[in-house]
Amino acid sequence: MKFSVNRQGFLKNLVDVQRAIPSKTTIPILTGIKLVASEEGLTLTGSDSEVSIEVFLPIEDEELQLTVQEPGSIVLPARFFGEIVKKLPLNLFSIETNDQLQATITAGSASFTLNGLSAVDYPQLPEIEKNHVITIPVPLFRQVIVQTAVAVSTAESRPILTGIHMVIKDNKLKAVATDSHRLSQRIIPLQMPAGSDALTFEMTLPGKTLLELSRIIDGLETIDFAITDNQILFQTETLSFYSRLLEGMYPDTDRLINDGANTSITVVASELVAAVERASLMSHTDKNNIATLTLSPERILLTGKSPEVGTVEEEIAVENFEGAPLEISFNPDYLKEALKLFGSSEAVINFLEANRPFTLKLKEDHSGIPHSFIQLVTPVRTFNG
Amino acid sequence: MKFSVNRQGFLKNLVDVQRAIPSKTTIPILTGIKLVASEEGLTLTGSDSEVSIEVFLPIEDEELQLTVQEPGSIVLPARFFGEIVKKLPLNLFSIETNDQLQATITAGSASFTLNGLSAVDYPQLPEIEKNHVITIPVPLFRQVIVQTAVAVSTAESRPILTGIHMVIKDNKLKAVATDSHRLSQRIIPLQMPAGSDALTFEMTLPGKTLLELSRIIDGLETIDFAITDNQILFQTETLSFYSRLLEGMYPDTDRLINDGANTSITVVASELVAAVERASLMSHTDKNNIATLTLSPERILLTGKSPEVGTVEEEIAVENFEGAPLEISFNPDYLKEALKLFGSSEAVINFLEANRPFTLKLKEDHSGIPHSFIQLVTPVRTFNG
Repeated sequence: MKFSVNRQGFLKNLVDVQRAIPSKTTIPILTGIKLVASEEGLTLTGSDSEVSIEVFLPIEDEELQLTVQEPGSIVLPARFFGEIVKKLPLNLFSIETNDQLQATITAGSASFTLNGLSAVDYPQLPEIEKNHVITIPVPLFRQVIVQTAVAVSTAESRPILTGIHMVIKDNKLKAVATDSHRLSQRIIPLQMPAGSDALTFEMTLPGKTLLELSRIIDGLETIDFAITDNQILFQTETLSFYSRLLEGMYPDTDRLINDGANTSITVVASELVAAVERASLMSHTDKNNIATLTLSPERILLTGKSPEVGTVEEEIAVENFEGAPLEISFNPDYLKEALKLFGSSEAVINFLEANRPFTLKLKEDHSGIPHSFIQLVTPVRTFNG
Repeated sequence: MKFSVNRQGFLKNLVDVQRAIPSKTTIPILTGIKLVASEEGLTLTGSDSEVSIEVFLPIEDEELQLTVQEPGSIVLPARFFGEIVKKLPLNLFSIETNDQLQATITAGSASFTLNGLSAVDYPQLPEIEKNHVITIPVPLFRQVIVQTAVAVSTAESRPILTGIHMVIKDNKLKAVATDSHRLSQRIIPLQMPAGSDALTFEMTLPGKTLLELSRIIDGLETIDFAITDNQILFQTETLSFYSRLLEGMYPDTDRLINDGANTSITVVASELVAAVERASLMSHTDKNNIATLTLSPERILLTGKSPEVGTVEEEIAVENFEGAPLEISFNPDYLKEALKLFGSSEAVINFLEANRPFTLKLKEDHSGIPHSFIQLVTPVRTFNG
């Protein structure tokens, strides 16, 4: 194998592929990156056996300055190889392999020789039939991921809750995540391919994987995806992103969502975020980490207490208050993270009772889809609450 | 105590004082910051018993918007207090204490109540006689610190080597540090106060402390210092920075400095830094961490080898080569850090033999002081070297 390529252009693709590559693994070759040079271009592959990322650098892309003098392949230690490429002088470098599976990376007067492995020994990527390919706008899909990933569980005790559950049905995509303390749901309209609009799919994808995907596809316009029983493939012209699906039944979240209200406030989300951050400064010093909202028509008070350190108290400005007075306690981190997803928009917070979950919604939702974006936060019961 | 002050102005001073405050200590009150409000202004004090920092916020400073309604004092948990001030709304806040040693911090609708300690229990700062106060320009002094701190030892096995040794004599300040693998020395002229120019001082200051000082005084014009047997006080109009001195005899470094040359090269420091960084990519994968320079009139080669990972080889461009061919091995990190202190200036590297230290100096030094800035790096002996 022998090729030369623009360093910056190569590096950008390398960084994307490296997102799939583990630093430690029981399958040593997976700490490597597979390079395959052909007359059409260069393919980079990385995988941790659950997520696999493949990018193709086409010979036609002039910015890449790619020239392949000799087709071939090799697997190189990914992290170290990346560090070398970052530090190379000049903007063009070349790689040449020899029969001993060594790669010589040359740029200007600097020359690295690296021991590699045979690409033949690298695991094959799964085959995915592309019968029903669904296309989705990237900005909208990234929003779905970010708005639901917030409620994904980080505890491995119930692996299914570390995923985002997606249901494709009636030309809509419903995404929902819950760690059993809070829940976030987003529903968007979907353009199903001709002949597929009666189909339904249901799957749970690892939350971390979707967040990695959202970073890689930032800036793109659309992405296709195809699903099999235990794999999903996201694809653009030059990128293939494979992920396994999580096994197990996802809990029925629809029955949890009740946005009725005995008490309701409308707030500018960013303003309440700042107040919640101040309250959580204090609550974080206490192992219980609880803040309390005291709601009444006269005033709305947010308080945090730590027996050792002190107290914090703040009067909250709201756009609107309706309903009965209420005192409710909760983990302020959950409220903060939920509110942050509204940016500087106005949010409606609906409360039922002190011991029932409260909901957050956009004040103005023009989607025409019921519960198109709704979050639930479960309160904490306190003895003085 | 009751005062109000501009949040940003207060925070800047708070951050400076916090540099002295430990997060954990055997003397609990030292995790606090002492606030003393008087009719003249506000004094903030922090200390870890080895370093103490005191700043004064004068009432006359209009940017500070300081008004003291009631003189008094308190000690507040420093880290937590700092987090609160950072998160407060608005740009003006007030602090009021009560008889139970509680401080209420108020800004807009937010109000924190913090449990404090009595300032009476806070340790007294040392008394330092100001008989011989020496004034030094800050930019030059910061340069002295940075250029010598590079060679300070981080190992606690010989505590004296964790310091920078300073000798004041003959209207000059000599600073030197060595971790026994490398050495850095800087000498600058000094304006001694009238009647003090026959005096000599010799002391070793903790390297870390001097680096903290250099950050705090960045941007100032001059700083005064006064020395006692075991303390030094650096002082500006509003800042007092106390440090203990390290005890013990500092090794005689003058006898180590020999910048004779059998082989000599002149390089653009920044260019060689980049090559050394590439070589150290490879050497870091090996526990020995060795790079080798092969010097000859024909070409100068920098190599790094790792039996497992591979090799790196780079031809170095030099401005000038003189003397005999030589092959010398060393820790590339030492060479890199030494070179970085030259910026993009030209440096002269003088070699004696493969097993003797080599020296780095500025190609152009107009100070008129012999060895005004010189660094030594000890080579590593190798079996094939």
